[in-house]
Amino acid sequence: MSELELWRDTDTRAAITDFVARVEAQGIPAAERVAVFDNDGTLWTEKPMPIQLQFIFGLWAKLAAADPALASQQPYKAVVDKDFGWLSAAVDKHYAGDDSDLKTLLAGVVRASAGQEVEAYTESARAFLDAGTHPSLGLPFTRCVFAPMVELLRYLEAHGFATYIASGGDRDFMRPAGDQLYGIPRERVIGSSLGLSYADGAVTYASAMGFLDDGPEKPVRIWSRIGRKPLLVGGNSNGDVPMFEFAREDALRLLVHHDDAEREFAYDAGAEDALKAAAAKGWTTVSVRDDWDTVFPATES
Amino acid sequence: MSELELWRDTDTRAAITDFVARVEAQGIPAAERVAVFDNDGTLWTEKPMPIQLQFIFGLWAKLAAADPALASQQPYKAVVDKDFGWLSAAVDKHYAGDDSDLKTLLAGVVRASAGQEVEAYTESARAFLDAGTHPSLGLPFTRCVFAPMVELLRYLEAHGFATYIASGGDRDFMRPAGDQLYGIPRERVIGSSLGLSYADGAVTYASAMGFLDDGPEKPVRIWSRIGRKPLLVGGNSNGDVPMFEFAREDALRLLVHHDDAEREFAYDAGAEDALKAAAAKGWTTVSVRDDWDTVFPATES
Repeated sequence: MSELELWRDTDTRAAITDFVARVEAQGIPAAERVAVFDNDGTLWTEKPMPIQLQFIFGLWAKLAAADPALASQQPYKAVVDKDFGWLSAAVDKHYAGDDSDLKTLLAGVVRASAGQEVEAYTESARAFLDAGTHPSLGLPFTRCVFAPMVELLRYLEAHGFATYIASGGDRDFMRPAGDQLYGIPRERVIGSSLGLSYADGAVTYASAMGFLDDGPEKPVRIWSRIGRKPLLVGGNSNGDVPMFEFAREDALRLLVHHDDAEREFAYDAGAEDALKAAAAKGWTTVSVRDDWDTVFPATES
Repeated sequence: MSELELWRDTDTRAAITDFVARVEAQGIPAAERVAVFDNDGTLWTEKPMPIQLQFIFGLWAKLAAADPALASQQPYKAVVDKDFGWLSAAVDKHYAGDDSDLKTLLAGVVRASAGQEVEAYTESARAFLDAGTHPSLGLPFTRCVFAPMVELLRYLEAHGFATYIASGGDRDFMRPAGDQLYGIPRERVIGSSLGLSYADGAVTYASAMGFLDDGPEKPVRIWSRIGRKPLLVGGNSNGDVPMFEFAREDALRLLVHHDDAEREFAYDAGAEDALKAAAAKGWTTVSVRDDWDTVFPATES
């Protein structure tokens, strides 16, 4: 059993091991040991922009090449011009409560996969992950995960927890990462969904968004998929606050705080409300700088 | 390990055991051993009408008592007048492709739980199951399950399969039955969903239907929840045909045929297309009369 060796000997580490000791001592049934984690910024890095977006860029470039009229429209224009400011601003505006550009972005996400069969899409996501490299860290995507969090997943499983991902990222994009990088099987990956339709033996993406699994949608999706309130939640942004509120009263709430510009990134944007709530309600803040001995794994998964 | 003792020594039983032996011999990975079953008419009896409807009746009677104007409107009127013909006709019309009365019925289902917290609803469903008795069989609801099918669930699990329910019935109503009667945990129950909303730490039912998990919606929900095509599917009606088509090419497809008026019920209504497809495509038909040594369990779960 892992003893959280990648975590420094801090109050945060003690909060985790004390919590798990209490769960064991109280004999909380295995079925109730549900641990739910956000993905982007919680299990792997989300800067300078979510890795999924970098996957979508390739799809948009293909669309714009096939239909040059798209090259002058957002979100395709951003990729054609290699001007990513519009895209990261769209995500930042979403976290600040303005979804106007996010809607344009999501319409592009929907268009990029409409009509494609779900299994083919998942395979192309897997190929992208296997081949790609982070633009500023220089690491392969498969090493952009937070090694202490992966260690925490195994530690929790060793104590009878079932681990889930509940993230704003696209469920079908995250499933290969879940399998390969986190050891979380695809039936335990909860995320946003493109609309789906069925015909002639195949499920394909429809021409509409399904739902965006962020903010108040996270508790709804957790209930739909698991049917229980989590006993442990991990997140890093404002969009995780409702999931933290929805967790059991006796739950452990872990908020990852990105405060390490040297080893990863330092930013509070998009996490202001979550950090305030953590301070006010006594949620456990995980400092990347102080609590983690290592950030990224030394070798690929 | 159960050896399917409740199944007679027929070709059907051999088809099941031969299939499982092939899965083992081929070494199909455990993660791919996904078995998905319909519920009403497949794992428990659905006649004279689905057990969930009998639960809803109690809720409608309360609504009509609180608001007498409802007593003259369907679907509440049917319960007040104890005239269940309209209701079973609504379900029969649905299976025949006409959803006009089903929409009225579903509006009543939505109204019966709107604003209620999800956990309270699940507990009331559990209490209903524990207390109720089937109107014509005289069995407690907890004995209305098909004992050979429950035995089959355990047999499959003993061979490394994960078992799921994918049924038109309401997911949150079925979850207590899944736990208690089938040994299928709530995270593996896929079903129809009332709309949900989140506020102030609680998930409650909204004033709109979510989706009806029947027909072409079943493959969509199976993909969303599991992320794989099933290796075994079990069903009994036209609404299961898309799920049967969506299963892997090498899947075992089990269609329960209700042909035993003496021990259960005999009917083909709502299963005409499924029976035709089974004959045309070589799906395995399970005869209640010929293949099952016992229909209902001798004692309560």
